[in-house]
This record gives sequence, structure tokens and C-alpha cells, in this order.
Amino acid sequence: MRGAEALLHTLADSGVEVCFANPGTSEMHFVAALDAVPRIRPVLGLFEGVATGAADGYGRMAAGPAATLLHLGPGLANGLANLHNARRARTSLVNVVGDHALHHKQYDPPLETDIDAAASTVSGWVHRSTSAAAVGVDTAQAVAAATAPPGQVATLILPADVSWSDGASSAAAPPPKRVPAVADAVVDEVAAVLRSGEPTVVLLGGAACRAAGLRAASRIGAVTGARVLVETFCARHQRGADLPAFDALAYPPETAAEQLATARHVVLAGAASPVSFFAYPERPSHPVPPGAQVHVLAAHTHDVEAALEALADQLASGVAPVPHQPARSNPPAGPLTVQSLAAVVAATLPEDAIVSDEANTAGPFLWAATAGAARHDWLRLTGGAIGQGLPVAVGAAVACPDRPVVCLEADGSAMYTISALWTMAREQLDVTTVVLSNRSYAILRGEMQRVRAGEIGPRAAALLDLDRPELDFVAIAAGMGVPAGRATTAAELSERLVDALTEPGPHLIEAVLPGPASGRQ
Amino acid sequence: MRGAEALLHTLADSGVEVCFANPGTSEMHFVAALDAVPRIRPVLGLFEGVATGAADGYGRMAAGPAATLLHLGPGLANGLANLHNARRARTSLVNVVGDHALHHKQYDPPLETDIDAAASTVSGWVHRSTSAAAVGVDTAQAVAAATAPPGQVATLILPADVSWSDGASSAAAPPPKRVPAVADAVVDEVAAVLRSGEPTVVLLGGAACRAAGLRAASRIGAVTGARVLVETFCARHQRGADLPAFDALAYPPETAAEQLATARHVVLAGAASPVSFFAYPERPSHPVPPGAQVHVLAAHTHDVEAALEALADQLASGVAPVPHQPARSNPPAGPLTVQSLAAVVAATLPEDAIVSDEANTAGPFLWAATAGAARHDWLRLTGGAIGQGLPVAVGAAVACPDRPVVCLEADGSAMYTISALWTMAREQLDVTTVVLSNRSYAILRGEMQRVRAGEIGPRAAALLDLDRPELDFVAIAAGMGVPAGRATTAAELSERLVDALTEPGPHLIEAVLPGPASGRQ
Repeated sequence: MRGAEALLHTLADSGVEVCFANPGTSEMHFVAALDAVPRIRPVLGLFEGVATGAADGYGRMAAGPAATLLHLGPGLANGLANLHNARRARTSLVNVVGDHALHHKQYDPPLETDIDAAASTVSGWVHRSTSAAAVGVDTAQAVAAATAPPGQVATLILPADVSWSDGASSAAAPPPKRVPAVADAVVDEVAAVLRSGEPTVVLLGGAACRAAGLRAASRIGAVTGARVLVETFCARHQRGADLPAFDALAYPPETAAEQLATARHVVLAGAASPVSFFAYPERPSHPVPPGAQVHVLAAHTHDVEAALEALADQLASGVAPVPHQPARSNPPAGPLTVQSLAAVVAATLPEDAIVSDEANTAGPFLWAATAGAARHDWLRLTGGAIGQGLPVAVGAAVACPDRPVVCLEADGSAMYTISALWTMAREQLDVTTVVLSNRSYAILRGEMQRVRAGEIGPRAAALLDLDRPELDFVAIAAGMGVPAGRATTAAELSERLVDALTEPGPHLIEAVLPGPASGRQ
Repeated sequence: MRGAEALLHTLADSGVEVCFANPGTSEMHFVAALDAVPRIRPVLGLFEGVATGAADGYGRMAAGPAATLLHLGPGLANGLANLHNARRARTSLVNVVGDHALHHKQYDPPLETDIDAAASTVSGWVHRSTSAAAVGVDTAQAVAAATAPPGQVATLILPADVSWSDGASSAAAPPPKRVPAVADAVVDEVAAVLRSGEPTVVLLGGAACRAAGLRAASRIGAVTGARVLVETFCARHQRGADLPAFDALAYPPETAAEQLATARHVVLAGAASPVSFFAYPERPSHPVPPGAQVHVLAAHTHDVEAALEALADQLASGVAPVPHQPARSNPPAGPLTVQSLAAVVAATLPEDAIVSDEANTAGPFLWAATAGAARHDWLRLTGGAIGQGLPVAVGAAVACPDRPVVCLEADGSAMYTISALWTMAREQLDVTTVVLSNRSYAILRGEMQRVRAGEIGPRAAALLDLDRPELDFVAIAAGMGVPAGRATTAAELSERLVDALTEPGPHLIEAVLPGPASGRQ
């Protein structure tokens, strides 16, 4: 058996069902082996950032680990930004990077680069297979590393000759790892904090943002008066209908500081200690007020859902979680604004939808408006590397073919990985993309004020505005095989959204919003 | 003076005129400083790979060094593939990467990554500025590193607080470095080899592919009978009209081996010792035959043009270079094939054009057909990281606004950095892009046979073919503000090319070629 076949058998035995790929010459034996080992479905991205972002979206939603196939150092480089987001999402992802044959590297051929150095920036585990005989075991170890709780990127570097050589055999799938439990003493300590009556914020992150964790947190908040927040950029947040709804810790540092201003204690449940996304002159790096104590109920490596339930049982035995009171209203009429757009999305979001949110400045409005929408999963921009939204939608749709996917995508971010639309068309994925077109990097106009960099002159504006020329997303989508239309009023958006959600397959709607630079529609 | 202003003053004093940028929050003071120091023109790319590829194209054609501005580790990651190509092109490029404020990094905010590790994979020089007082001198050193002969990528990491803090001052521009001369004894040794009469190949690379080197090599070949070849992927090759024309060392390893089969000596003039682009089973890594001797006339670090001229003066005093005999013919009629497309391009290429060639499988046909075309510069895919062609065309057009730029672009590669079209439209660059649409990664179908991976099954084909759905480049270009049309016959291509080249500003022509998978038009 060739190395490539052993790799694919081992991946398939380990629960890998899909490989998001953009291969090159050094991966041709892997590609050929896909027909010899037809247990893994290849999905082509026209750019590696699409493949890695799709793998992240897949991994956030699927039961088994995600997998990629990338071409040498430059292919890895193109996929790094979305692997960074996957790292921050703690997605279980086996990242296979083809390399030159081992004997060929010494000649420094044109595509030779330091793959290990680049891979180390996003991976919890990096290993180069050095013989066909070893590749099965190496692959099993890569899966074990990728699925170690809560999940990480494991990069397996596969030299071409290891891939094409005979003498390989598949290896046994690693046993699934159990998520370690939080010690009772830690739960007791946090319970004591919450019983103290001192102002406390419970910050949920990671697995705590799923139904069980949310319900337990709701019970805790109801009894103790603690304020429950969810982390700003959660990888996967279950929301809507009867689930308890909490505010997110805000992105703007001044708002986050206000949310925590009166807290004497911050309890971390699966979340990291909060830190400002960026530094700003004369502002602290984190919003936790001086004198407040930070307590870790559960780190991301531990079973945060069980810990929250144990805490709720101690503090709120017999108390029920407080469901959100849905306030669904008819979609609004009138001009299209961020607010009316959010209301339209909330009113039309279908049951069991998956939302890929890269709406950036519009994100908080959409998030707030949809708290009472139908049940859904909300996937956010975990690592801040833009260009995630469309690929994550691809991967979520591949993982969950029976669920509608709604991609809320800022225009500037959309252009990073726009060819994801083509993969949606090829795979006929049920993704409805709404491009929020305000023809600017609106977030940077806000940040320019926040960092006190002064007035925005014409040269600066040239780097912030996207209006010369205006991007026509309807034409771009059509060029990639995705039916598309434009909405300039709330009613038009509502109508187009309903149509797109009703019809199977991918659709795109360009939602024309006021441009912040000009103030015009 | 703020750090950002000192940086810009120092760059401008060092000959930097343009900054290809895609900034984020941590670069807002740099962006604001562009208006305070209006000596540097910012050019926005909607994706960092566009910015870095454009900087490479600019640096290959401009007198002064190229510069970029990228946002943190993920922005650098998105730009790495084209920085890799710039590294292989030995382009002088100051790569400015914004970073979090120094005091903020310890909190591991979402966008934090190991910038140094990623930068090291493409840079000859990496340095992080740690105070506003130091940033002027650091910038001068970055320019000195970038412009050290023959040129390299120098990455300056700029923390946000260094950028926004006062107390900075600009530093003196570094003195231009001289390219070291090749020792007379080396020229004498190579002259003796060439006088021996033994079969010899002279391989030109780097600066030897410009007019002076080509003319000297032609004289040497005429007198000694040595065969002159140019390296496979030259960063900038001056060609056409009365310049001597030489074959390129072929990309297919079997063809390259044939070209060198009878050589007893290989003389390297600015080129690296040839190596196969990829390894293949049971095939050597390089095409130099056993027993042949490799001699270095001039490494890329040395003055290869002067060395070739000295060699020519020794061997061929009074002998004139042999000009290529242009065989220009009328453009052909009939169906559009790679051959007829190449003939049309050769017949219509305007005087003093710059060609950005990422035509991949069609490249050799285009290259051969244009040897007798009007004078032009030919820029090739130096590092093999696809997605270079459109951005390099952007940068070349910014560097040389009075010269027409023709971008010959494969469909698969075009999709990597397709948003370069928007920058062409915004800057109204005189670039005519011909997309060679064969709806497949044609090169990989060839490589699949070459690596002996076996028959191409349906799962493998799904990763090689781009025909479900077909990409409509006319619609995509229109969506980004570039007027576009489609050509399905040679006559149609000829007409559209003439029109596009006559009218200023960017244009795109989708040239519909037979698809190799189906054999259909």
C-alpha cells in the first residue's frame, strides 16, 4: 500500500469524512488515492483560505474532525489566516501539507520554504512523515492531537516520496479522549464566590455557549444575581427560541469596561480572561476593573458544561433556566439600514439555521436582533482574521446538509475569500449569503477615531473606502455560478431572503447600506 | 514626531514612492501619517496577496525599492505566497507589518500570532522596532537590507505604540550599495572552459536576462558555439525586436534533461544551478548530466552583466551580438487554441509592453511566439506560488505608467488574487488581462501522468477540473469595475486585444480555450 492510501485509510478510520483541498504536483498521489480509498469526499477550494476556512466551519459543526490538503509552503501560507481562526476556535483539524520529496529539498527548488516555521504559528502539533512505513502511525497521532480536548490544528507534513512509496499500512484510530472534569473543590470555591452576594460576572466561552451550559448559567444567574455574559467571539453559540439569551462582552473596549465596571469577581467558564482586541493609547489592555478577582471555573481544556451544571445544582437546585422571551415581529418596511436589515434577518431566520457571522460593524445589531429568532447556531470570527465568513459557511453546509446556512458577510471581508461562492455553487450548498455593502472598511473609520490618530485625510481615506469603483456583488456571484440579487429597501431584502431560503442551493443578496463616508444611501 | 511619521519620512528619503497596503486597527497611525507625510502614494489591495504581489511587480520594474503595509500576523500570512515569489525574484521590498502594542502582546489577544516565525520564511532580514526613538534608524536599516544586491524582502515589524508615540526622528537614507564585481581570475577560468571547445551551456539568470547581458552572451555563443539558455522563471527578461533570443531551460524535467544532455560544462551567469521544479519517482532532482562540470561565472550577488561583457571581450572581441530575426506575421484566423492565442498575442504586443506571465501550461507557447515581437519586458512566476500574475501586473503598471501592461493569466491561478482587478480599476491602470480559460488545472493533469500516479478517477478529477460551474470572468471583472469581453476565435481575440490596448485603463478578455478534460471547445 502506498503512503497516500495508508493516510486516507487511517483518516477514514478515525472519523474523517471530508477533505477540503487545493492540491499541487507534490500531492498528486494523495489525489489519486482518493479514488482508491473512496471513503473520503474531496471538496475543492479555488484558494487555500477557502479550504482551511471551510474545514474550520465543518469542524465547528461536525461530529468528527475536519481535514485539509494543501500544496507546500505557499499553499499553507494562503491557508494560514483561516487556520489562525480555527486555532482560536479550537477546531479539531488535521491539516495535511504536501512537501517536496525528502531527497529533493536539499536542492532548494523554487517552491521550497520553511513549512515547519509557518505551520508552527497555527498548529498545536507539527510533524513531518519521513517514510511510507511511518505514515499510518503518524496520521493516527495527528488525529489524536487534533481531537485532544477541546481541539486544535494538527499539521502533518507529507513529503511526495512518502506519499508515493509502497510499504505503508494504515494505523488504528486513536481512542476518543475524554474531556477532564473540573475538580469539585474548584466548583465549591466558585459557589462560595457567587454566594457572597458581591457583584459578579460569569463569562461563558467555548462549549459553555451550547444549550446545556446556557441553561445552567441561566439558573445560576437567576438565583445569585450574577450577570452572565458570553465571550465576544464564540466559535459556536446555540441561540434562539427558548434558550436563555445573554449579552456578549462587547468589542469596543470602552463598552466592555462599562459591562464589567461594577464587578468584584469575574468567573471564567470556558472563556479566557477578557482582553481588548487591540491596544489603544492611554487605555488598559483588559476590561477587568482594578481590584476585581478573576476565578477560573473551567479552562477550555476541561468539561465546562458539567462544571456549570454542578455549580447550578449547588446554587439553584430545583430552579429552572429563564428562557428568552421571543419578541418576534413582522419585518420592517422603509430604507435599508443596519437596524432594519437586522430586523429582517431576525424575522426570516429559518428553524435550525446555522449563521456564519462576519458582519463586523453590523454584527452586534444582528446578534441582538436575533436573540429571539428561531433556534440556530451562531458562528463568529474567532481569530479576527477577516475572510472567514464565506468559507465557514461552506464547511458548515457540508457538515450539516439538512440545515439552512445563512452567511452575514461584510463587503470588505467578503473579498478576501470570495471564490468560496464557486465552491457553494459546485457543491450546491444550501447557503444564503447576505453581503452587507457599505462600500468601506467601516470598522477602521471607527478605529481611526478610537486610536486618536486624528482627522481622516484623503490619503488615509483611500485605504478605508471601497467606493471607487463600487463592487457589484451580484455580477461577481453570477460569475461564480451563484444566483444573486440586490436589495435596497427592507421590504426588498425580506422578499429576496424568503425566496433564497425557500429555494435549495446557494444564493447571494447584496444588501445596499448607507456608506459611512458619504452618508448617502 | 510620531513613529509612523519618522518611518514614512525615512522611506521617502530612501526612494520609496509607493506603499501597497491593506491596513487594520494597529496600523491606523501609519495610515493617518500618509496625509501628514504626503510623499508616499498609498495603493489599496482588497487582499494582502494583491498588495505583496503588486509590490513585487513594482520592485521588478521601478528604480527604487517597493514597500508594503500589512496588518498583523494574519495580514502577513495572506501576503506570504507573493512575498515568497518576491524572495525568489530577489525584489528589493520593505515589508512593514503592524503589530500589537508591545505591552498588549502578553495578553494574547485574538489576532496575536508569531509574526517573526512567519516573516522569517520569506525575509532576508526581520526586525521589530521597540521604540519611537529607534524607528527611523530601524527603517533606514530595513531599506539597506532590502536593497543589498541583488535585493531581498526586509520585514520591519511595527508595534502600534511605536507607531503612535512621539519622540521619533527620521534617519538618513542608506548609501546605495555597489554590486561587487566578479574577480578577473573567475572570468579567465570560464573563458578557458569556453575555449576548450567541449560542449557547454551558458545559463543566464537574474540581471543577465537584461539587454546588456543578452548581447554579451550572444557574442560568446557566436564565437564559442556554446548554447545559451535563460533560466526557466526569470524575474524580468528583456526581449523582442533586435535583442538576441534564447530558449529557456524547460519546466518539464525530461525536456530540461534533453537540453543539457550533451553538455560537458554548465556555466552559471546569474542563475542558480538548475533543479527540477518537483521531484518525480525514479528521476534525478536536477537535469545536469553526470560528469558535466558546473562553473559559476557570477552568483546572483555579483555583477553578472559586467562579467559577461568581460568574458565576451576576451572571447569575441569585435564580434557583434546576433539579433533575433523577427518573423512577425499577421494574426491567424480560425479557432482559439493555445497556439493561435500565442500568435495573436505576439502579433499585437505593443512597443515597450510589460508582460506579466502566469499562463502556466500555455506559457512556453506564448514565450516562444513572442521572441520576435516588439521590445518588451517579460515577468515570470519566480517562486511557483500561483496568484502572482494579476498583482504583479498592478505593480508594474504603477511603476511604469507610460508603458502598456499585458497580463497573461491562467484561469485557475487568476482566482487566487482576483480582487487585483479592483485595484486596476481604482487606479485606472493600463493593464490588459487575457484570462486563458481552459476550465481546469491543466498543469496538474500533466503532472498526474508525470508522477505516475495512475488513471484519473472521478474523485481526483473533482480536484483538477474547474468546469462545474464554469467561471464567467467577464461577469467577475465587471463586478470589480473592469470592462471585459469574451473571445472564442482567434479573430475575435485579435480584435478585442487591439481595442483593449488602444483604450487607456484596465480591460479583461476571457479567451475561451479547449478544455483538456473534455477535448471540447
